[in-house]
Amino acid sequence: MIDLRSDTVTKPTKEMREAALNARVGDDVYGEDPAVNELEQTAAKLLGKEAALFVTSGTQGNQIAVLTHCNPGNEVIMEAESHIFYYESGAISAFAGVQPRTLKGIRGAMDPLEVEGAIREDDQHFPETSLICIENTHNRAGGAIVPSSNMKEIYTIAQKNHIPVHVDGARLFNAASALGVPLTEFTQYCDTVQVCLSKGLGAPVGSIIAGSEAFIKKARKWRKRLGGGLRQAGIIAAPGLYALNHMRERLAEDHKNAVLLSEGLSSIPSLTIANNVDTNIVVAEVSALGMTSAEFTSLLKKEGILAVTFGPSLVRFTTHLDVSKDDIEKTIAVVRKLVES
Amino acid sequence: MIDLRSDTVTKPTKEMREAALNARVGDDVYGEDPAVNELEQTAAKLLGKEAALFVTSGTQGNQIAVLTHCNPGNEVIMEAESHIFYYESGAISAFAGVQPRTLKGIRGAMDPLEVEGAIREDDQHFPETSLICIENTHNRAGGAIVPSSNMKEIYTIAQKNHIPVHVDGARLFNAASALGVPLTEFTQYCDTVQVCLSKGLGAPVGSIIAGSEAFIKKARKWRKRLGGGLRQAGIIAAPGLYALNHMRERLAEDHKNAVLLSEGLSSIPSLTIANNVDTNIVVAEVSALGMTSAEFTSLLKKEGILAVTFGPSLVRFTTHLDVSKDDIEKTIAVVRKLVES
Amino acid sequence: MIDLRSDTVTKPTKEMREAALNARVGDDVYGEDPAVNELEQTAAKLLGKEAALFVTSGTQGNQIAVLTHCNPGNEVIMEAESHIFYYESGAISAFAGVQPRTLKGIRGAMDPLEVEGAIREDDQHFPETSLICIENTHNRAGGAIVPSSNMKEIYTIAQKNHIPVHVDGARLFNAASALGVPLTEFTQYCDTVQVCLSKGLGAPVGSIIAGSEAFIKKARKWRKRLGGGLRQAGIIAAPGLYALNHMRERLAEDHKNAVLLSEGLSSIPSLTIANNVDTNIVVAEVSALGMTSAEFTSLLKKEGILAVTFGPSLVRFTTHLDVSKDDIEKTIAVVRKLVES
Amino acid sequence: MIDLRSDTVTKPTKEMREAALNARVGDDVYGEDPAVNELEQTAAKLLGKEAALFVTSGTQGNQIAVLTHCNPGNEVIMEAESHIFYYESGAISAFAGVQPRTLKGIRGAMDPLEVEGAIREDDQHFPETSLICIENTHNRAGGAIVPSSNMKEIYTIAQKNHIPVHVDGARLFNAASALGVPLTEFTQYCDTVQVCLSKGLGAPVGSIIAGSEAFIKKARKWRKRLGGGLRQAGIIAAPGLYALNHMRERLAEDHKNAVLLSEGLSSIPSLTIANNVDTNIVVAEVSALGMTSAEFTSLLKKEGILAVTFGPSLVRFTTHLDVSKDDIEKTIAVVRKLVES
Repeated sequence: MIDLRSDTVTKPTKEMREAALNARVGDDVYGEDPAVNELEQTAAKLLGKEAALFVTSGTQGNQIAVLTHCNPGNEVIMEAESHIFYYESGAISAFAGVQPRTLKGIRGAMDPLEVEGAIREDDQHFPETSLICIENTHNRAGGAIVPSSNMKEIYTIAQKNHIPVHVDGARLFNAASALGVPLTEFTQYCDTVQVCLSKGLGAPVGSIIAGSEAFIKKARKWRKRLGGGLRQAGIIAAPGLYALNHMRERLAEDHKNAVLLSEGLSSIPSLTIANNVDTNIVVAEVSALGMTSAEFTSLLKKEGILAVTFGPSLVRFTTHLDVSKDDIEKTIAVVRKLVES
Repeated sequence: MIDLRSDTVTKPTKEMREAALNARVGDDVYGEDPAVNELEQTAAKLLGKEAALFVTSGTQGNQIAVLTHCNPGNEVIMEAESHIFYYESGAISAFAGVQPRTLKGIRGAMDPLEVEGAIREDDQHFPETSLICIENTHNRAGGAIVPSSNMKEIYTIAQKNHIPVHVDGARLFNAASALGVPLTEFTQYCDTVQVCLSKGLGAPVGSIIAGSEAFIKKARKWRKRLGGGLRQAGIIAAPGLYALNHMRERLAEDHKNAVLLSEGLSSIPSLTIANNVDTNIVVAEVSALGMTSAEFTSLLKKEGILAVTFGPSLVRFTTHLDVSKDDIEKTIAVVRKLVES
Repeated sequence: MIDLRSDTVTKPTKEMREAALNARVGDDVYGEDPAVNELEQTAAKLLGKEAALFVTSGTQGNQIAVLTHCNPGNEVIMEAESHIFYYESGAISAFAGVQPRTLKGIRGAMDPLEVEGAIREDDQHFPETSLICIENTHNRAGGAIVPSSNMKEIYTIAQKNHIPVHVDGARLFNAASALGVPLTEFTQYCDTVQVCLSKGLGAPVGSIIAGSEAFIKKARKWRKRLGGGLRQAGIIAAPGLYALNHMRERLAEDHKNAVLLSEGLSSIPSLTIANNVDTNIVVAEVSALGMTSAEFTSLLKKEGILAVTFGPSLVRFTTHLDVSKDDIEKTIAVVRKLVES
Repeated sequence: MIDLRSDTVTKPTKEMREAALNARVGDDVYGEDPAVNELEQTAAKLLGKEAALFVTSGTQGNQIAVLTHCNPGNEVIMEAESHIFYYESGAISAFAGVQPRTLKGIRGAMDPLEVEGAIREDDQHFPETSLICIENTHNRAGGAIVPSSNMKEIYTIAQKNHIPVHVDGARLFNAASALGVPLTEFTQYCDTVQVCLSKGLGAPVGSIIAGSEAFIKKARKWRKRLGGGLRQAGIIAAPGLYALNHMRERLAEDHKNAVLLSEGLSSIPSLTIANNVDTNIVVAEVSALGMTSAEFTSLLKKEGILAVTFGPSLVRFTTHLDVSKDDIEKTIAVVRKLVES
């Protein structure tokens, strides 16, 4: 099987497993797990924030951010197809009691003027705008990089209005790698950020949220309420730390493979590529083939290739650690055969 | 003062006050208030539903509908500028824990195909779509009437997907009056509906929600939780019943006045009317005057005329019981003088 | 019928109805209803607080207090059978997301040492104690007056721990009347208080919450979210104001009638009185009659007397405006006949 | 250091770490992690339920149970010092919106008659009783075993009232081991159960909830909302499975050590043991020493022994995998020296 469904499917490497084997651990609910502490300190430094917290998933990191920044009856501004709105089962409303205010972005980036216009005035009919979320890279925009200049403009507006900015940076490592910039190029324009260790970096489990010390102290309690307070978490934090330290460099390879796949697929009649391939995601439009995305992925599966539907006529392919250049070439060949037969 | 801010400002008539004076009352928490019971039965019949419930406001009616139809983590489809999203302080997320899925409508009407596309599939990443809300007439679309044909299409889709439809009919009486149709022309295409007695009909306080008996039984409990279980509610239900029985006819007058106002204002240089005037709301665009809507309403106020801002450059005028044809003419004259001076 | 079920069943007097007829009204959502404003100012002064807010019920007042004082995940200390825990349908957890911490009181009064012991330390396993509620008079303790000395002790502990105190004073007028003291004798020992106009005072609808100006500003928004923002609310505020100004004196009569009833019932074989009759509530224990409370109230009903069950073997009788001394004597006679037959 | 604070502090054994090293893994969000699937199937079978779900903590398992069984405004009956009420930061109210109804138990066991009496009737003033929780063994009752006969009585009442029963079995393995019975001796009297792998069994991370297939399907979605949907979770599920298969036998050793500790401490003047030592928890009363529990644990710490306060004058000691008989004897000697000096 060539599994292009998501970069979450990567298996941990030998080194990561050995990190689990040898991890120095303790009870992290008491703050005594050395591997967790080292991971959190390393991540905070990389992200340019005072403190960081290890959480079990990107969703948990985002939920904790919203719970910590907001109160019920608040409104949160976010892009209309952002993960936190589209893929988190309505959890921000179920748990934090907040109302999402969604703005349609261009390649994942919201128009700063629209953001400014969406901030609510003080009026008893209105929810209080208490958070702005930016997703970078933006998954449903096809792994698009939200430019730091756009983030800066939004952050300036946010600060003027005393509203914090949270970045869902599940794939922020891809953005930094693709542009050859440090993570802080982006994180300087936000108050808090969530990054996933278990996507491109290949760690088995876990994400990080980072922000001020005061924020992380409150976040820790919300993590406990969500059941994310773990015991000997070093068993997963140690592989996570290995991933953080050693796997960022190689994301460039995934990006090259994505471009290769994109070029290959776009050369096939009736297939078009729907996104600019900034990072490791390729979105193909299949309607001209006379089939739905579900029919297309089903045919692919029979040929040993896995991809996911991304709407009725869109199919998403994601490159990652466990997909080689050869796999990409094989994928292109299989699709070409399928389409031409 | 000529008060065109809203049709909520109407003072109760002498007959309504006398209805309060003479109301037969009881303890409505025990279901023993005859005036409330009569009002609820009359309203249910008019709206073509099995049962109805008296509530203290349109917001309370809408909130109860969402609380009764939905569970936390559900998603509710609604128009992007609908009252329930725009003007209810985020309460549906704060209390019912649901996530609004907003679709931009045309003159208040959502595209049925977009509604269908927004219904979520069964997937653990997705909230469950559990309600579709339609606002009719649509306030921020300038009192626009959502055609019953549009409602029918959406209702058909909803039923196919086993999703209930709720109508925020705060001004549904205006829609019915303007088209000369019974309320059931609209309410046949929904499961539950909320109508306000305290807007065009002029009652001092109160709204009605209507639906199946099972729905109303559950709704009654949510009303109690919200603190809307009243005691001798007949004191306000009796004026409400009077309004329901005697004030629907005269809405036509408000609509004529709105057209008159719209024509008058549109004849003034640099002023344009931003909405089709279907009912009792006129929205003027004032940016060509070189001032903001706040500056414009502030100037008007000094001349004894009240209107509300409806965005940075839009001003809303609403006609109602306490505004005469003379008031409209005076308003036009004042605005003309203001603009031309 | 002699209706001793509750003091909520009182019909508005002629004067109250005339107050509705003649009320000067406005749109209270805009803060323009003179009758509401006068009621709120009068109530604030009587209660010794900076500001007050008219709400539609005691439940709504209590809910708003909790929503305004607390955040989700907080804990609220209250007596184990207090109204806010026992009779408000779990609304504080449903809406405010708080956990009640219940302490068994003696005649409605919590032990200050137990209150102190129940305050949570700062620990990620613990909810934050953010409110202490006192009910006075205490309904399920049979209208018991919580002594101001007890309130003072609790308030001192609360202030030392920076925790606000809210009083559910649905029947605080009865406590003040029974002891011949001003309301401030009690309200000096709390931050916020809710009092009902529609119980002993006989107003048709409504309650008041009072507190600091900052508290009331926030409370107003929560009232709006709950759907308690009314329009020409003067129609009910004016009768409420009449009740506040003219009906407090006569509560002494209800208390005399309650003592009379208590003495009469306790002289009947097999019937015992379960409470000290401090105010207008009498609780009878009926198990020695060989019947349940439901059977007993059902028999009474056939004789034209209404009372409510208060547990499997307890029956509550409440005196009020619409119950005369004659009614009490008739009630005693009927019960005696029932028991002896 | 001899660490008697909790059985959560155990370090994973060499075999558990090797299980992590060698685990067959996949993406568990897609249901493709073989180690997780094997763990869930093994656990379901042991617990006598149709299906099971791996979660990251006992708190997460309990929260998911409440979220899955209940709706906002419901009431949940539980023991007054149960973990879910006392130690989960008010999360059931914050997230599920339910109100706990706490009953004081005897050695952790609620009186079935009191449970029956606490079930609410159908009335709009009352929350709906929708769940009964039993904690077994009961932590704050000193690891007390709730007899299966007590559970049976409560379960019978629950079934008669169509109310599900959930067991917080964080330490249910200890109960089964101490009595030499299978887990199903207890779990036959509940609908759902949560057991911890990271307490007595010594796994680094994780708990299991088990119940019907329909329950687990819904639970899986709530787990996702809480951020508990993991990727290559096999890394921690494999050690968990090892613990489940190999570590239950040795709990008897912890129980012997607890008895040894209890006997040793009770022979020291001024120290008394506050609990019956059913399993692995010993609670000592230290007030007769003229010091608080915090002062006592602080002195112990200086001598290299860790224990936790369990109230102002109570100290909890917990035996586990990483505490030997020698450690216990040393602990007794140290305490004796401390007390006698």
